[in-house]
Amino acid sequence: MINIAIMGLGVVGSGTADLLTENRQLIERRLGQAVHIKYILDIRDMPDSPYSNLLVKDVKVILQDPEVSVVAELMGGSHPAFEYTLAALEAGKSVVTSNKEVVANFGVRLMQAAAAHGVSYLFEASTGGGIPVIRPLARDLAGNVITEISGILNGTTNYILTRMWKGGVSFEEALSEAQALGYAERDPSADVEGKDTCRKICILGAVATGRLAQVDRIYTEGISAIRLTDVRVAEHMDASIKLLGRMVYQDGSLYMMTAPFIVRHDNPLSRIDDVFNGVLVSGNYVGDVMFYGRGAGAKATASAVVADILALAAGEGPVCREPWREAGENVPADFANFVSRNYIAMSGVDSNAIDVIFGSVEYLPTVEGEIAFLTAPVSEREAQDNLTRLSACGGVLQSRVRLF
Amino acid sequence: MINIAIMGLGVVGSGTADLLTENRQLIERRLGQAVHIKYILDIRDMPDSPYSNLLVKDVKVILQDPEVSVVAELMGGSHPAFEYTLAALEAGKSVVTSNKEVVANFGVRLMQAAAAHGVSYLFEASTGGGIPVIRPLARDLAGNVITEISGILNGTTNYILTRMWKGGVSFEEALSEAQALGYAERDPSADVEGKDTCRKICILGAVATGRLAQVDRIYTEGISAIRLTDVRVAEHMDASIKLLGRMVYQDGSLYMMTAPFIVRHDNPLSRIDDVFNGVLVSGNYVGDVMFYGRGAGAKATASAVVADILALAAGEGPVCREPWREAGENVPADFANFVSRNYIAMSGVDSNAIDVIFGSVEYLPTVEGEIAFLTAPVSEREAQDNLTRLSACGGVLQSRVRLF
Repeated sequence: MINIAIMGLGVVGSGTADLLTENRQLIERRLGQAVHIKYILDIRDMPDSPYSNLLVKDVKVILQDPEVSVVAELMGGSHPAFEYTLAALEAGKSVVTSNKEVVANFGVRLMQAAAAHGVSYLFEASTGGGIPVIRPLARDLAGNVITEISGILNGTTNYILTRMWKGGVSFEEALSEAQALGYAERDPSADVEGKDTCRKICILGAVATGRLAQVDRIYTEGISAIRLTDVRVAEHMDASIKLLGRMVYQDGSLYMMTAPFIVRHDNPLSRIDDVFNGVLVSGNYVGDVMFYGRGAGAKATASAVVADILALAAGEGPVCREPWREAGENVPADFANFVSRNYIAMSGVDSNAIDVIFGSVEYLPTVEGEIAFLTAPVSEREAQDNLTRLSACGGVLQSRVRLF
Repeated sequence: MINIAIMGLGVVGSGTADLLTENRQLIERRLGQAVHIKYILDIRDMPDSPYSNLLVKDVKVILQDPEVSVVAELMGGSHPAFEYTLAALEAGKSVVTSNKEVVANFGVRLMQAAAAHGVSYLFEASTGGGIPVIRPLARDLAGNVITEISGILNGTTNYILTRMWKGGVSFEEALSEAQALGYAERDPSADVEGKDTCRKICILGAVATGRLAQVDRIYTEGISAIRLTDVRVAEHMDASIKLLGRMVYQDGSLYMMTAPFIVRHDNPLSRIDDVFNGVLVSGNYVGDVMFYGRGAGAKATASAVVADILALAAGEGPVCREPWREAGENVPADFANFVSRNYIAMSGVDSNAIDVIFGSVEYLPTVEGEIAFLTAPVSEREAQDNLTRLSACGGVLQSRVRLF
């Protein structure tokens, strides 16, 4: 029997306790031993919880109990989650987590602490919810040079973009719907402005390369500026707009970004709708593979948390065989040099100015009073310079979305 | 450094040797040690192969060399692959394989032999080519009761069905195209008649349940009877026809089958086209997840073979923590009791007879001289009985495809 402690009896914590309870027999059979929840840490009084008898308020109870070998940190937020995780590792307990913020910000330090104390820090649930993605990327694709990762990693924004596309509603309306359905927080900025996706691509990039980039050095753009008009133009291109976290090599440089992209319907990512997530990974031998499923929610995320608990119970070590290092100055590469084609919508200019400044472009049908076009591949720097020149000619930028 | 031997320098064997050569540095960095190919077994003389200096013709050279700790059996076919695998395991060498026939037919015995000799028998490459599916199912979804697996597991038949749908060509034409492109063998029966898919669902079922069913007890139906008319009727239903390997519970009984199904476009499996494979897995906590990618080919399959080699080099044990047993009498359950809706096309009868015999059905537009309908959910036994009765009324069955 292994004894575990859960930190945080929120949505994921409750789901994890439920899974370990409901599937107890199956787990015991598969693992050859039982998984016993000894404590659940939460500062709240929760007399009506079925787990109220396991609740403790002082983390020291867990840290000082030598019977607890695995801790599931499901609190969310950076602090005190980071401090509790570090203390647990230093107390010789392995930690599993769903906390993308802590993994993205403190992953290297925590993995070093784990290694120093002969334990592991696992994080399958931090990215893609229940979708197996961290372990498959680290283990099943370990023989490949990973050349690209592009993922729909946030269900809230994907729901909003799907509703705009299929329901013809505005961003604001779709966001209100998502909030009413409980898919979006009352303060939706972390989802909508791309911060959540950014943390996740930061983690996936580290799994693929062994180097953890600084979150605030990853170019991050959300979807709040996407208009229904843009969605319609994309539709005309037989494509939809998706918020992607991306890690991609261009000319040997490793770029990382979070931004909306126009994804053509022949790409499997364009078909990932509603709250679902999908991660497309390219390796130099495997080609393209995609992982698809529910990227959030109590039950799906609990599935990933428990997978890591079972891995530890079975004696598996760290999921990434190569220890993570902090990324150097060159990762991610300077986004100004990233090259892509761009859909651009402007008012106040005509095609003459655009042709002179952007050279060969492809014009797209759009609403009256605007002119829309698709550029040739240009660097970010070049695109910005050209837009500045168009602005000097009286042009007003209405929208810009990169082509996947 | 670990020394390995490859058995069989065919498509997958060459791909594996190429990967280990091309990605040598990366692998050494990730693994912390080198993977060295010491021997390649092949009965053919291959003086022009870049690996000719590694070729041996006598399996004993490999079996008797204590330096070889891992053998990659990439020969295909049941014999002598089974005997060589058993001998390698008994000689204390772990074996990785891409050979679905051997895993599906002899998996239990080989895993027992591996356990008895303290080594492992891994088979990620046997199903889904390069797509991570065995390890994610066994490890990442280990906390779930797996309630269903439905997979497009054969690229050849999926290419044929895609060409019929998108290209409007007949089964025979699509098959000829597939043969010309090298996607189909000259004798395509193992693919086209569903045998290949059957072996793969047999393996996935064992990973999910711990019980290996007998291949010849799994209901297996191929795609050679699918007509362009049927594809068109499916299209009218906003669906496509896909050959699926399925493991599904109904009323507590576990059914397994390989058969073409009409899959509606709102299901992600319907969008897996051409030679791609996709495996949809449902778990009681994770919900639906899907794995997508290239299910065959030298490079993709090599990716999976090497993943298993690296797992062994890193000291990982068997992928399924629960040892496989032979399935009992009840697995798979009697297919006569499997319930589904059926698309049926007949000639020689009118709707009066159909209404009387099948009760409430939904009529579908089809070609002149035929009548097509979708039944209510019926068991296989009931469907067969009803078709016999319609045949007694002069009806001639033209086609029948189950609805997913």
